Amino acid sequence: MKVDTLIINADLFTMKGEGVGYVDEGSIAIDRGVIVETGLTEHLLKEYSAEEVIDATDKMVLPGFVDAHIHTYWGTLRGISQDSSMWMHKGVGPYKRKLTNAQRLSGSKMIVLEALAAGTTTFGDYGSPINDIAAFYSKIGARASLTGMIKEVPEVLDNLEEGDLYPFDKSIGEQTLKENLELIEKWHGKHNNRITTLMGPQGPDFMSVDMLKKVKKIATQKQLKIHMHVAQASRESKQILGRYNKRSVAFLNDLGYLDNSLIAVHLTDATKEEIKTLVNREVSMTLCSGAIGLIRGIAPPASEFINEGGTVALGTDQPSGNNCNQIINEMKLTALFNKLKFKSPETMPAWKVLRMATIEGAKVLGLNNEIGSLEKGKKADIIFVDLKEKTMQPVIKYPMRNHVPNLVYSARGSEIKQVMVNGETLYKNGEFLTVNEDEIVEEAQRMSTELTRSISQEAFEKTSNYEFMKSEKL
Amino acid sequence: MKVDTLIINADLFTMKGEGVGYVDEGSIAIDRGVIVETGLTEHLLKEYSAEEVIDATDKMVLPGFVDAHIHTYWGTLRGISQDSSMWMHKGVGPYKRKLTNAQRLSGSKMIVLEALAAGTTTFGDYGSPINDIAAFYSKIGARASLTGMIKEVPEVLDNLEEGDLYPFDKSIGEQTLKENLELIEKWHGKHNNRITTLMGPQGPDFMSVDMLKKVKKIATQKQLKIHMHVAQASRESKQILGRYNKRSVAFLNDLGYLDNSLIAVHLTDATKEEIKTLVNREVSMTLCSGAIGLIRGIAPPASEFINEGGTVALGTDQPSGNNCNQIINEMKLTALFNKLKFKSPETMPAWKVLRMATIEGAKVLGLNNEIGSLEKGKKADIIFVDLKEKTMQPVIKYPMRNHVPNLVYSARGSEIKQVMVNGETLYKNGEFLTVNEDEIVEEAQRMSTELTRSISQEAFEKTSNYEFMKSEKL
Repeated sequence: MKVDTLIINADLFTMKGEGVGYVDEGSIAIDRGVIVETGLTEHLLKEYSAEEVIDATDKMVLPGFVDAHIHTYWGTLRGISQDSSMWMHKGVGPYKRKLTNAQRLSGSKMIVLEALAAGTTTFGDYGSPINDIAAFYSKIGARASLTGMIKEVPEVLDNLEEGDLYPFDKSIGEQTLKENLELIEKWHGKHNNRITTLMGPQGPDFMSVDMLKKVKKIATQKQLKIHMHVAQASRESKQILGRYNKRSVAFLNDLGYLDNSLIAVHLTDATKEEIKTLVNREVSMTLCSGAIGLIRGIAPPASEFINEGGTVALGTDQPSGNNCNQIINEMKLTALFNKLKFKSPETMPAWKVLRMATIEGAKVLGLNNEIGSLEKGKKADIIFVDLKEKTMQPVIKYPMRNHVPNLVYSARGSEIKQVMVNGETLYKNGEFLTVNEDEIVEEAQRMSTELTRSISQEAFEKTSNYEFMKSEKL
Repeated sequence: MKVDTLIINADLFTMKGEGVGYVDEGSIAIDRGVIVETGLTEHLLKEYSAEEVIDATDKMVLPGFVDAHIHTYWGTLRGISQDSSMWMHKGVGPYKRKLTNAQRLSGSKMIVLEALAAGTTTFGDYGSPINDIAAFYSKIGARASLTGMIKEVPEVLDNLEEGDLYPFDKSIGEQTLKENLELIEKWHGKHNNRITTLMGPQGPDFMSVDMLKKVKKIATQKQLKIHMHVAQASRESKQILGRYNKRSVAFLNDLGYLDNSLIAVHLTDATKEEIKTLVNREVSMTLCSGAIGLIRGIAPPASEFINEGGTVALGTDQPSGNNCNQIINEMKLTALFNKLKFKSPETMPAWKVLRMATIEGAKVLGLNNEIGSLEKGKKADIIFVDLKEKTMQPVIKYPMRNHVPNLVYSARGSEIKQVMVNGETLYKNGEFLTVNEDEIVEEAQRMSTELTRSISQEAFEKTSNYEFMKSEKL
């Protein structure tokens, strides 16, 4: 049989089954972006002839990573807010308030390049201007599961006292809902389902009950998942308690939100009982170890959610906050943070975080029929890791394999030499094939300079970085 | 004045003073491997002419990293022991027992390449065959502060029951002491002090009182520092309690070990009071966040030691255990682990771990008169970070600088494009200038295959990886 592409001689990790699905001397036949067959090289070479044969000798070949929660639009702000106890207010605040849509979009593009070159093929991107961001995913060729951020609270809240409830502004709600609906209308299912969409109420504390009900109703009608920050901090719990005299999970339960269409992000403030309730109701979870570790000093409840039987995806969150948008970093931090939390090196082994980064991530986004593992009928979203790189060396195959531990605990992202989505190569040996990297990086730098230079000295002096600058710590 | 090298137009972080010592449009004049002056490019261009002018536009230039505790000789074993509650016994054991000196040396070389390319210029290498390893540092041109590992306990302990005291073998003690003394004799002060040496009693539990006294006496006579694992685990505490009826710190105090010549590594099992005692006696500390996090699920007491006023260096420890020998990884993990431990994002800010990786690390090794900061009279051990790499983008200079947070929280090691020791470039744009990378990596791979294929199925079935292999998790 004639196919478009045949990958041969790979150390293949399909992620099929309950483990990592290893195939020695592995091969993949791809036609029109879809995997026709996986198996042994010698078998597939007999059955298929191909336009393009990719020799993956000395390569670890596996499904592309799923980043289930990423706010790329903060890209121009990397490094301006960390080591602060009030990350949003004393760090990002003055910059965020001035961020234009053009600046957001330019930062977004740069972060997509960073993540894609490090193996992310599916982007759970969440934010605004999401329709422009969608156009960029359309162009670059990556898979995207996009969410507009619906909220009724102004972008930056000034003069709010401890204990004050957030003000709601219906016009912001209508506008942000409109943006999310436009996204769905315009992009859902585009490019043979390479781009899909979700509904994005920012969090239970960021809008009125009316708006929450409206969003849920639309999501049900359109059969879309809901992507939402839930129990993300004590701040949220205080808002919901103050307004409704209950906690977030109980509140969302009363609104009919707790079902398998809900993706709950963070859950840092959720109790053990609440986690049990969420899992029982088939809610799935996305966690962002790097971001929550850095901005709050907390390890999200990954093990707790998994131990109840729940499905967990990884996300890199926003560039200023995490500062790093590479799933390979999230795998390592998630494994290590959970070992520390439970004082046990057995907790959260390498294979488990690799599943979270691939097949479990796909399940959370509702895309596991299409991606997350390399098997017949799935889309060919594939990454190639160079085993000749020092950080992947030595390669051991007997009596055990060390590919997965080395990928999780040693690799740093630069070992990924080729990234393919729908069978099309988007990145190879440091070069992007569908966009111009230099232009994108230079634009983001220009936009960032424009933004940061517009901050007044007075506004800057209110940030925690002011003290660091004064004492020559930056 | 005529000098060998002039670096110009750098975003220069000298690490001079109490902070990071930033100089905008910075310049460094270097002659015969020594820094003659640092300052503004326009000033230095007027005062100096140079054989070689390095234009460091778009580069962050800073002192090379100090890895104060690294066992490179485990290099052929990367990835064979993790996610196990008995890392040594159920992971490394069967391999370690068979490791030959040739295999150790080949692994060592590969790890040195990995670390050097990621910015490590000073190697606190500790192990055997240390004289052969010294010869490699001599050749490659890196700075090394080397330690032979003195012990009286056999390499691998079989049939030891819980509570049994380790057997001591005087002949092993004499042989390992001899190796350390040969090292000192042959290498201390070589290459204009590029190679220095320390005394290395492995730990208080690994030898008799007689040997500990002998080592301390020699170190005092020779005015050498002592590099020693101290209070590294409850296992050690049990041995010392069982043998001497006191804990490690009290025991070492009675032997006269607690003074400014002692570098105590790990201290994971040290109490608050013991830490206070150590700091008061001017003992310094080296911690290995990645290794101890991964193999024990514990964050070492870095903040605790610093808060008492102590000096702390970073180390990457051994490749199987940490699996990663890059100080850039240790900076990030040390910052994050301490934030988690104290549930505070303010704990262990970026500038602090950068100081630990440079000037504080130099202090711990007793080399701060020569390295650790870029200032007049110090050796030119310098690294160049490419600010055009996406992970360092955008670069913000006003109203604050984001170089240091981006280096610590975003960079992954591959941003380092040039590494210089004593003013000599050892690595540039992916190429090693003094050794053949391909030969070294291929040899390590060959040696690793030879080693791992010599393991019996029976021995392998006793490791925790056997279960992972059986269930297709590797």
